[in-house]
Amino acid sequence: MKVAVGIDIGGTNTVWGFIDADGAVIEKGTFPTTDHPKAESLVNEAAAQISQVLQHRTQLELIGIGIGAPNGNFFNGTVEFAPNLSWEGIVPLKELFQAHFDLPVWVTNDANAAAIGEMQFGAAQGMNDFLIVTLGTGLGSGFVANGELIYGHDAFAGELGHTIVELDGRQCGCGRKGCLETYASATGIVRTAHLKLASYEGSSSLQQLDTITSKNIAEAAKKGDTLALEIFDYTAQKLGFSLANTVAISSPKAIVLFGGLAHSGDLIVQPTKHYMEQYMLNIFQNKVEILLSSVPEADAAILGAAALVWKQT
Amino acid sequence: MKVAVGIDIGGTNTVWGFIDADGAVIEKGTFPTTDHPKAESLVNEAAAQISQVLQHRTQLELIGIGIGAPNGNFFNGTVEFAPNLSWEGIVPLKELFQAHFDLPVWVTNDANAAAIGEMQFGAAQGMNDFLIVTLGTGLGSGFVANGELIYGHDAFAGELGHTIVELDGRQCGCGRKGCLETYASATGIVRTAHLKLASYEGSSSLQQLDTITSKNIAEAAKKGDTLALEIFDYTAQKLGFSLANTVAISSPKAIVLFGGLAHSGDLIVQPTKHYMEQYMLNIFQNKVEILLSSVPEADAAILGAAALVWKQT
Repeated sequence: MKVAVGIDIGGTNTVWGFIDADGAVIEKGTFPTTDHPKAESLVNEAAAQISQVLQHRTQLELIGIGIGAPNGNFFNGTVEFAPNLSWEGIVPLKELFQAHFDLPVWVTNDANAAAIGEMQFGAAQGMNDFLIVTLGTGLGSGFVANGELIYGHDAFAGELGHTIVELDGRQCGCGRKGCLETYASATGIVRTAHLKLASYEGSSSLQQLDTITSKNIAEAAKKGDTLALEIFDYTAQKLGFSLANTVAISSPKAIVLFGGLAHSGDLIVQPTKHYMEQYMLNIFQNKVEILLSSVPEADAAILGAAALVWKQT
Repeated sequence: MKVAVGIDIGGTNTVWGFIDADGAVIEKGTFPTTDHPKAESLVNEAAAQISQVLQHRTQLELIGIGIGAPNGNFFNGTVEFAPNLSWEGIVPLKELFQAHFDLPVWVTNDANAAAIGEMQFGAAQGMNDFLIVTLGTGLGSGFVANGELIYGHDAFAGELGHTIVELDGRQCGCGRKGCLETYASATGIVRTAHLKLASYEGSSSLQQLDTITSKNIAEAAKKGDTLALEIFDYTAQKLGFSLANTVAISSPKAIVLFGGLAHSGDLIVQPTKHYMEQYMLNIFQNKVEILLSSVPEADAAILGAAALVWKQT
């Protein structure tokens, strides 16, 4: 039975899984990324765990390894100056894995892996032109056109989160101001909550909380809390505006939302769609779907990484 | 000798040319588009002129026909509701030409043809990831990623001119406000001139003119006219801002400028580059070139259209 291994290297944990052609998880495992300050050591650990599975399950025929990692570079098979890992400089991850396995190895970043996962196993199956927007702590994105991921000339394409939607807007971690992810992300919506709370004169359940999370805001909005709904509306306006501009460039069939904020479902989808249509050029109106990811979130990262392999076969 | 025919159908004139694999114009001709209120009649005329060349120059082996036309749809080989042509509805242009020639026929819009022309014969040769921005009456664009034009799911991708760069900004012909082309185009820069003239207290040669054109502004700027330079700076700020956001999405190796405003050369390139770098995410800084088109402008439209054919061979 042919299988691909998908590996997700996160700041805290590394997860690996054997994935078949249909996206079923055959076997998976995990270990702390932080146990391995050096990349070589992490690769040795992952390779040992993968090899052990192969020894026990001799019916598995491994055809390749896909890796999703922060700042993963598809062209070079490297991880470059990853902000959330202790590794320094440019790490030749593909090469390190190929020292253990005489197989094709692909590396890319998390959002790109998610896009390919969605195309292979999720909401974007059969689509040649779409984009995924991951609404987590930050905002990641992966663009697919003509059935291929847009990597750009340097493999760094797809930074929708760092397009500026408001000149001199909110300070962003990247050093600039007004980036989309300072508004449309789990942290962005919390910033909006603070802003709105500062001037709100009505009564809201959010006023009772010591700490506000995006989940709190979603729960309040689901119960009809006016302020929470306003916060979602504001977030959706920024996201919808940005998506309308993005559609004018790549004219996708669909935009797939993934991650934390996407869990709020229609609370984010409906107003985002409303604003996107409002800001959109007429020739694109009522043509672009906003979908929720349909890859099971618990395994999305390893499915996306494994999809890198299945996409190439 | 293998040749491709490139046809440019403009609102006023239709131009055709026989183009070899190196982009040399072997023979060309033109006739008024406006003589042919119906598409069938225009196609008959073009086909007759092309056939005549083939009869006289028997060494020419025609391998295909490429057509650039307003609202040309690459996927369907059609021209759809073209605003500048008298044709109504959806015209099956590819089919009409194939009734005369048993050959591959491709149709696309002007900006996409220009992008392929630049890739095949001009400043973007050898590039897999770039975009062209045509700064004419409006602002057109064509995006190339992974060596392929981004058409999007409906062939309407590449409308950078209709991305909104200023919420509630200038009224655009598309019915919305603040589109990039209301600032960065031959008409946009004239609008900026009027705005600046309204409040300028200094002395400028532009104050002496009855009618202001983008050419006047460029001439004044070249002579060091302070107001004209300010007008270019403002235009470049809007364009540079938009390009910085665009780079974050597609990470091109270069941005090729083409058309009227591009003739002002460094007057537009230098400040646009300056603002693009200023608004750009750090990982993209100092990596993206802004180039001027190197396809001879007189023949650019037919070269771009013919490049559609050569690109496929």
